[in-house]
Amino acid sequence: MDKLLYGVAYYDEYMPYDRLAEDIRMMKEAGINTVRIAESTWSTHEPQNGVFDFSSVDRVLDAMHEAGIRVIVGTPTYAVPAWMVKEDPAVLAETAAGGPGRYGARQIMDITNKTYLFYAERIIRKLIGRVKDHPAVIGYQTDNETKHYDTAGPNVQLRFVKYMREKYGSLDVVNRRFGLDYWSNRIDSWEDFPSVNGTINGSLGAEFARFQRGLVTEFLAWQVGLVREYARPDQFVTQNFDFEWRGHSFGVQPSVDHFEAAQPFDIAGVDIYHPSQAKLTGAEISFGGDMTRSLKGSNYLVLETQAQAFPDWTPYPGQLRQLAFSHLASGANMVAYWHWHSIHNSFETYWKGLLSHDLKPNPVYDEAKTVGRDFARLSEQLVNLKKKSDVAVMVSNEALTALEWFKLPGGLKYNDVVRWMYDELYKLNVQCDFIPASCKRLADYRMIVVPALYAAPDDTLERLNAYVRDGGHVVYSFKSGFADDVVQVRAAQQPGIIHEACGVGYSVFVEPDAVALRDGALSFDPEAREVRTWMELLTPTTAEALAYYDHPHWGTYAAVTRNRYGAGTATYVGCMTTADAMRRIFREALASADLLGADQELVFPIVVKTGVNGQGRVVRYYFNYSDAPVTLRYPHGAGRELLADVPVETGDSLQLGRWDVKIVVAEV
Amino acid sequence: MDKLLYGVAYYDEYMPYDRLAEDIRMMKEAGINTVRIAESTWSTHEPQNGVFDFSSVDRVLDAMHEAGIRVIVGTPTYAVPAWMVKEDPAVLAETAAGGPGRYGARQIMDITNKTYLFYAERIIRKLIGRVKDHPAVIGYQTDNETKHYDTAGPNVQLRFVKYMREKYGSLDVVNRRFGLDYWSNRIDSWEDFPSVNGTINGSLGAEFARFQRGLVTEFLAWQVGLVREYARPDQFVTQNFDFEWRGHSFGVQPSVDHFEAAQPFDIAGVDIYHPSQAKLTGAEISFGGDMTRSLKGSNYLVLETQAQAFPDWTPYPGQLRQLAFSHLASGANMVAYWHWHSIHNSFETYWKGLLSHDLKPNPVYDEAKTVGRDFARLSEQLVNLKKKSDVAVMVSNEALTALEWFKLPGGLKYNDVVRWMYDELYKLNVQCDFIPASCKRLADYRMIVVPALYAAPDDTLERLNAYVRDGGHVVYSFKSGFADDVVQVRAAQQPGIIHEACGVGYSVFVEPDAVALRDGALSFDPEAREVRTWMELLTPTTAEALAYYDHPHWGTYAAVTRNRYGAGTATYVGCMTTADAMRRIFREALASADLLGADQELVFPIVVKTGVNGQGRVVRYYFNYSDAPVTLRYPHGAGRELLADVPVETGDSLQLGRWDVKIVVAEV
Amino acid sequence: MDKLLYGVAYYDEYMPYDRLAEDIRMMKEAGINTVRIAESTWSTHEPQNGVFDFSSVDRVLDAMHEAGIRVIVGTPTYAVPAWMVKEDPAVLAETAAGGPGRYGARQIMDITNKTYLFYAERIIRKLIGRVKDHPAVIGYQTDNETKHYDTAGPNVQLRFVKYMREKYGSLDVVNRRFGLDYWSNRIDSWEDFPSVNGTINGSLGAEFARFQRGLVTEFLAWQVGLVREYARPDQFVTQNFDFEWRGHSFGVQPSVDHFEAAQPFDIAGVDIYHPSQAKLTGAEISFGGDMTRSLKGSNYLVLETQAQAFPDWTPYPGQLRQLAFSHLASGANMVAYWHWHSIHNSFETYWKGLLSHDLKPNPVYDEAKTVGRDFARLSEQLVNLKKKSDVAVMVSNEALTALEWFKLPGGLKYNDVVRWMYDELYKLNVQCDFIPASCKRLADYRMIVVPALYAAPDDTLERLNAYVRDGGHVVYSFKSGFADDVVQVRAAQQPGIIHEACGVGYSVFVEPDAVALRDGALSFDPEAREVRTWMELLTPTTAEALAYYDHPHWGTYAAVTRNRYGAGTATYVGCMTTADAMRRIFREALASADLLGADQELVFPIVVKTGVNGQGRVVRYYFNYSDAPVTLRYPHGAGRELLADVPVETGDSLQLGRWDVKIVVAEV
Repeated sequence: MDKLLYGVAYYDEYMPYDRLAEDIRMMKEAGINTVRIAESTWSTHEPQNGVFDFSSVDRVLDAMHEAGIRVIVGTPTYAVPAWMVKEDPAVLAETAAGGPGRYGARQIMDITNKTYLFYAERIIRKLIGRVKDHPAVIGYQTDNETKHYDTAGPNVQLRFVKYMREKYGSLDVVNRRFGLDYWSNRIDSWEDFPSVNGTINGSLGAEFARFQRGLVTEFLAWQVGLVREYARPDQFVTQNFDFEWRGHSFGVQPSVDHFEAAQPFDIAGVDIYHPSQAKLTGAEISFGGDMTRSLKGSNYLVLETQAQAFPDWTPYPGQLRQLAFSHLASGANMVAYWHWHSIHNSFETYWKGLLSHDLKPNPVYDEAKTVGRDFARLSEQLVNLKKKSDVAVMVSNEALTALEWFKLPGGLKYNDVVRWMYDELYKLNVQCDFIPASCKRLADYRMIVVPALYAAPDDTLERLNAYVRDGGHVVYSFKSGFADDVVQVRAAQQPGIIHEACGVGYSVFVEPDAVALRDGALSFDPEAREVRTWMELLTPTTAEALAYYDHPHWGTYAAVTRNRYGAGTATYVGCMTTADAMRRIFREALASADLLGADQELVFPIVVKTGVNGQGRVVRYYFNYSDAPVTLRYPHGAGRELLADVPVETGDSLQLGRWDVKIVVAEV
Repeated sequence: MDKLLYGVAYYDEYMPYDRLAEDIRMMKEAGINTVRIAESTWSTHEPQNGVFDFSSVDRVLDAMHEAGIRVIVGTPTYAVPAWMVKEDPAVLAETAAGGPGRYGARQIMDITNKTYLFYAERIIRKLIGRVKDHPAVIGYQTDNETKHYDTAGPNVQLRFVKYMREKYGSLDVVNRRFGLDYWSNRIDSWEDFPSVNGTINGSLGAEFARFQRGLVTEFLAWQVGLVREYARPDQFVTQNFDFEWRGHSFGVQPSVDHFEAAQPFDIAGVDIYHPSQAKLTGAEISFGGDMTRSLKGSNYLVLETQAQAFPDWTPYPGQLRQLAFSHLASGANMVAYWHWHSIHNSFETYWKGLLSHDLKPNPVYDEAKTVGRDFARLSEQLVNLKKKSDVAVMVSNEALTALEWFKLPGGLKYNDVVRWMYDELYKLNVQCDFIPASCKRLADYRMIVVPALYAAPDDTLERLNAYVRDGGHVVYSFKSGFADDVVQVRAAQQPGIIHEACGVGYSVFVEPDAVALRDGALSFDPEAREVRTWMELLTPTTAEALAYYDHPHWGTYAAVTRNRYGAGTATYVGCMTTADAMRRIFREALASADLLGADQELVFPIVVKTGVNGQGRVVRYYFNYSDAPVTLRYPHGAGRELLADVPVETGDSLQLGRWDVKIVVAEV
Repeated sequence: MDKLLYGVAYYDEYMPYDRLAEDIRMMKEAGINTVRIAESTWSTHEPQNGVFDFSSVDRVLDAMHEAGIRVIVGTPTYAVPAWMVKEDPAVLAETAAGGPGRYGARQIMDITNKTYLFYAERIIRKLIGRVKDHPAVIGYQTDNETKHYDTAGPNVQLRFVKYMREKYGSLDVVNRRFGLDYWSNRIDSWEDFPSVNGTINGSLGAEFARFQRGLVTEFLAWQVGLVREYARPDQFVTQNFDFEWRGHSFGVQPSVDHFEAAQPFDIAGVDIYHPSQAKLTGAEISFGGDMTRSLKGSNYLVLETQAQAFPDWTPYPGQLRQLAFSHLASGANMVAYWHWHSIHNSFETYWKGLLSHDLKPNPVYDEAKTVGRDFARLSEQLVNLKKKSDVAVMVSNEALTALEWFKLPGGLKYNDVVRWMYDELYKLNVQCDFIPASCKRLADYRMIVVPALYAAPDDTLERLNAYVRDGGHVVYSFKSGFADDVVQVRAAQQPGIIHEACGVGYSVFVEPDAVALRDGALSFDPEAREVRTWMELLTPTTAEALAYYDHPHWGTYAAVTRNRYGAGTATYVGCMTTADAMRRIFREALASADLLGADQELVFPIVVKTGVNGQGRVVRYYFNYSDAPVTLRYPHGAGRELLADVPVETGDSLQLGRWDVKIVVAEV
């Protein structure tokens, strides 16, 4: 990217009156240099079947170009027009909850339906064909937050049966590996294969979820192929990925394999939404950034993030600035708000944009102006930040799905385990990449963190064993290695294959009821010892116990262990601990891996993010994620703080106000 | 009305054995002088299609007449016979949740279905034609607690499309005003108009809700027309309106526009149910009474209220008496229990009547006898109470519906805001009317209270501005004036049009998180300062701040403001406060409007209600809604306490026992 | 039974690899002498329509026989193969929630569907015909945990109409007894009879539930008839009954009339699951055992109970032993685990068996070995324990269903009332039988406890009156006698017919709000006086008040009464009390019935269970259901403690460790 992009999603079509010129004037004033258009408004562009009207696109492109604002054009396929559904209601996805669907919302279609695909191809060709030569257009976004929308009707079931035959060859294999004898679910003729919408077989259910994720990968690759027929060489193609949604971006996306789906794109895009005001921690920005940067191993675009958004998210003064730089610090080259203006009708009226409904300046817009100024001023030093991680977190859609079928107690889900581990790395200022379970480049990292890798093929686990043997350090949570790639529990002592590197075994697990950690080789803060939700009764074979359970009956078992294996170590955390205890365990593991440095002496709410800029200089971001000012001693070599544009020497005090940020670029 | 009516709903058809004579004997003993019959028993009166059996009607009419008890006959159309549904299942309403419906409950039919309307017309003509000349019959009730039952099948959708074309003329207007470009919902051909059952467009959803309320208005007017073809001039036609139900009567009825639907009736009727025992406050009786009195601007009938009802409602000794007089104090001319006896089968077995299942006297029945005696004795002085209110509360079905689409945080609904304001007026002994947003007679009132008027046409808001300018006083809650009549948020600084009278603006709103009121021009009790659920960050232009927010970031914004505008004042309450703080604000606004009097010096649990009787004398009701005796100094001129039949002089002590009532009629 | 059976459910079909020989070796080591097979695996035995493969049955039977392990063969009809549903989807039950059903789970078929019955008969004949002569087979289980699965489609509705005509003769009777005039539900032509899936008539709904229970009785009798065509005289036929499920076995089974359904079986079987670890009380084992023993008035089989099961159930050391003997102490002749191994796929992966997924020994398996040894050693003394109860608890499916329609406040259900009473008898070490409301042998008992007998025919209540008159003692809870057999509330003063023996009346009932018991003839612990959920305002006629209500308005009413009537007493508990207060009332009633003995001087967590063995000697089990050791003085004549094999003299101290058991057999 030649410069930092500061952007908004812009919907000329939604405006209550014509204000394009005024909007552009206000955008310029705020330093907005990029807009995203068109991804939601198919019915405007094709008001009747085969009748096209791109006038709003044309006029926005021309006006933006004249103003020097760049445009990303989205294919408008994630929300279908009423006429299409009226002509062929089968366009709407039938899900396991039943069908047919009802018209109204976005993301309700069957992405395998041929009518839908016919019309989608036509609108894509028409739209991209029209705009491709426009000088304002710098790239394309295919669809938006694409998922499979639980499509599971008879046509999808039919494809799934063919997929199963293709993948497993024979019903004998399927019956055996999926355990179909159980409860009389055996299938001895392909014609008998039942719809899996009612299945109680977790292996089958998980396989169907994987198949559905494959539909998304296929659909996106098909769109990229279409767009590439038109795109100029200088134009990129991206996708707006998103995360498991718990009222905000939370964790690994259940419905899409991000690593697979990202393959055909030039650059990864993402939307990141997060709690704000007193609940702002920056953790979601860091999580989402690390994940998206890892998809293509390079810088990424934040295609959507919040400006004012919900009443409980409206940023405190200073937070909007802090957030913009937080995205850059994780490797983003673009920060764009959803959206420019607040919408006056329909559904997302309270998801407010940079402008409120009055379309006038407001305190948040005014703060954005300072961001725009600084982005423009500092673009050269901050764009294309290169980040190198010593630590990787291994995540898995398969493990996530399997733990939906075989739930942990108390509603604990896969992403709770992921975030329980990730967030402590974040608070320790440990820079992470994310890697999929299929990753072969384990040796790129000094330490790998593996949350709840419940279902995984043998070779993944064997690679992890080899990684440790060769000097790597792994920190596993409970439940890792339990089942194979078709969610068949391993018929060996747990934790199965990784037992070899972990030097620990168990066959019994219980729910904790007033259980605490008891010190083994590690000592824990008395306040932080509570054991929650799940505990495995570990018996070390070659491992040492870092902690035991404090309990009248389970007290002889280990809770957390560490094993030297070959040239490395494997730490196994057999229970859900407090955040503080998890951090304590990480600190110990990082020490083993020789990964403790100056950044780990700072503690949250101070957050440090680091990278190397295009001039080869180290850039260090310091954030204060709190409502109280903090001071820290700057431990590195001489540099320059960019926002205040002042020199910084080793040992200087850096003072950060509430919700503040400072950026120090090294002198050399 | 020539006298007070004391009544019961009576179902001879439900009796486990023939006890008509015994029931009438016991009714007479209790002073019951009116019964309501027939509204639930279509299948008894038409056991087979076209076969009619009115024997239970005939015998009840004759026996009641002989006993001097009057009868209100209901049309039995709100519960359909099994044979009708068997012959034509389409009689049952298809709702947005799906269809077809299932037979069993009442209020499950499509009130636009032609089969249903055919049979309904026939049974109405047969029944009313048969009873019209009977001397016992004093009036008719059409249907019962009529609503639209969410009817939303294809036939209703078709009518809705025609309604939209009729109302808005062109799809261009609809697309623009309803914001249909959003998420590709645009419609460019009437044939494409989708069923709104799946819509995510709040403007469209709210319009459909208004259309559905129109179906109720139309249905009731049609019934009134039929009944009037038969009714004698001395017979009235009424309807049994009811309220939003939250386990008891709570607030504005979402499914019916009471003001519109009440037009064709001679007199408004209502059912009012409310918590009892230690939870009895009288607020629902006052709310329901004020609302129903306002529909026709005159006295009304309480067609149903509780006798024993639920186990948690069974009145404490004294409460049944207190309740009966509470209804009269709000302007009721009839108090009738649902129902005479408790039902031995089916569904409402635990909604007990005046008699328990044993059909014998019981403590509640014994208390009713004292009520009956007093009603008879005091009828002349208490009937036809005229009430004049200086204060009106403006309510709106449109605002209610819009806030269902655009929900306030924490499950707060329109009626919570209405009751938050109304209940404090009640506790201040301020007599209120209710007026619809379309009301043109604003000048009839000295003060108008406007809770959460979220969606309203321009002219309503302009009338409110003019009202203030001309010397009126308005108290607005947050969210008033936000959107227009099609729930399009106004593209002007909030609170939009009413900003003119309020002298305050805002464009940002947040959810309070540990926020309190900070004193401005008003001071608040430290215990009462909590800000709840919603807060708008107000910036006064010409207004003065009555309160600010106490918060590290939002502390510069006002929370409550008052503006002098023309000859009046507009108070704007920008957040949800405690009940005490709301009362404090009202007391201030009442002072501005010169509406504080002797009654406002008494505080809840003492409740005062006032009116003028047929002899032109002021009647004052004093209630003690508590379990502890209270004493008050009687501040008015000499009068007579009717229940004890003793004189009262200015300054006398009035002593009220627990759950007690006293009625003082002025001497002149 | 010739010896104690120690068993497991065994699924060779589910094993991840061939381990039959190893499994048998490990079973023998654990003392397992019986396995149950085949009840879940129809699709394995009939992989295609009409193609049979009993090889897994054959090889297991042969291998077990060779090892001296007995086999119970289950008919595999409770889980249908995919091919059947593909051929005829109508096999799946349509329920009141809709249809058609979806394939996947077990227990989803319409047990009246003729296709299903055709295939079920064929597989039963094939399987039983094949195994009947095998020497390993000692008996058969028909189906498994059979219920009606809410089948309620049009075919079932049609049968129900015929059932109604057969039972009640005329619609006049139905309309009158079921109160169908209410809400226009009257039916005047059989053709109009609506599906009851939408009914709001509790009488009709309860009748349909009774009809559905009859379908289960009929289905099981049909299976028994088929199996008996093949069974050898030395082979038994049993059924695996189960209970209302609340995450574990809780109370009376709503969907099956156990007393009726048990008729055709030789011996009753049951599954019992219960909380464990610190929540283990033994109450469910006692409840389930007493119920199942009562079905045939003899010993029974525990066909399923937990080994490791869920993570929160994994037994503490010692508990598995204690549980096994607890079942014997209630009269079981078999204790079998569900199941031998833990399942590696599908649905119940976390319902762990005796073996974990690694199929290796583990602490629970090791403890089972000690049970197996002791069962074998002590079989002769412990098998066929005869138990005689002086107290019976009268239970009723009809009352349970009626209270589903007419719910008690706060979610309180019939079985909560049953367990509230039963559990205190259990804690008082009072041995109980269960009897149905239709029981004629009341005189067999000295005391009868009647929880919430809400709906009952006149003759049941008259028998209870006569029982008291003749010297029996009854303890009724609130709500007893309220309605008749078609759930029509009695039109007499409550508690209706039983008023005669109880000497108490009421017509008003309320929900308690800060109400306590006030001492009458009985005194209560101040801590135990809270009144919960429901209270009837009792007025004694001839009864004495054991307790009153402490309340400002209801204080004159009695809460608990006792009446001498004829030669007996009737205690009426008019409200839900604390457990302690209920126990206090029982202690008083037991004293009246002269039923207090040495066992009642011991208190929970010490539990005593008694019976007479085949040698005519009294066997006394002493359990400590707690985590702290206890000591008790042995009060009976000299005996021998069997587990330690030591003599016990009168007055000896018996010391029980945590979760311990001792078994003393009398010398003579």
